[in-house]
Amino acid sequence: MTTENNLNGTAASVVSTSPFLKTLVLQIRGQDAYGVYRSWSDDLLLKAFVVSKQKKREISIEGEVDPVTQARIMSFFRAVAARIEQETGLISQVVIDLSHEGFGWALVFSGRLLLTVKTLRDAHRFGFDSLEKLAEEGEKFVEKGLDLAKRYREVSKL
Amino acid sequence: MTTENNLNGTAASVVSTSPFLKTLVLQIRGQDAYGVYRSWSDDLLLKAFVVSKQKKREISIEGEVDPVTQARIMSFFRAVAARIEQETGLISQVVIDLSHEGFGWALVFSGRLLLTVKTLRDAHRFGFDSLEKLAEEGEKFVEKGLDLAKRYREVSKL
Repeated sequence: MTTENNLNGTAASVVSTSPFLKTLVLQIRGQDAYGVYRSWSDDLLLKAFVVSKQKKREISIEGEVDPVTQARIMSFFRAVAARIEQETGLISQVVIDLSHEGFGWALVFSGRLLLTVKTLRDAHRFGFDSLEKLAEEGEKFVEKGLDLAKRYREVSKL
Repeated sequence: MTTENNLNGTAASVVSTSPFLKTLVLQIRGQDAYGVYRSWSDDLLLKAFVVSKQKKREISIEGEVDPVTQARIMSFFRAVAARIEQETGLISQVVIDLSHEGFGWALVFSGRLLLTVKTLRDAHRFGFDSLEKLAEEGEKFVEKGLDLAKRYREVSKL
């Protein structure tokens, strides 16, 4: 790994202590049909989710959202869905609806229950300050979804 | 109106007896910022929603779904949402997620409750056999949504 690809010294430990990051890594590897990432470490895989404030300012919000960024948004919410499935057994759907201007919705639902509702804006700049922040935000969505799935089990089974 | 644009003799009465079709007409007229449809009758406006089986076979499902067809799908589900709002006071969101191949989802939700969930396929061919069928299908979504909104009011308010 080159120095440039090295995020920080604690990356591996962040992944190993976060069930969300572990699931996200599995999501990305599961989509990797051509084995591009086979030799990449987990922290290198997740590096693309870390976008500093400075870097965000540099990303243009003109035009379509880059397909790679769209795939990243999809992986993030698929990981939320997968974590909820692990805990509850509920199979859920992920729908990402993005306009050409980078505005839209990310939805995770099971039956008639919306486990996650997130409005997206400036989706071109989708990313988090650090791996810790990525883990934290992901876990927040998972917890909210788990709470709803528990309280409204009946609706999630419709 | 030319003979070609004349759907059938009972069109006006179908619209006048269907709360769904009335709402759908209002949705279309509300989006008509340039007044293109100002001089069109209601039945002529709705004619685009009537696509015979024969005609469907003639529509290619290759490539992107035509923007006009996408707008028609949006109007249909916006009308479902508007009818539910009229009856319940619930404000809802409509999300249409279509892949480039015409597959996807149409969702109407309020709070954390999904009032409408429809998988779309071959969306290029979106349409109904007749105005009566259009009214019937629309009412079906409205009734289902109303039933859910009544049973799970709490979830729709989250």
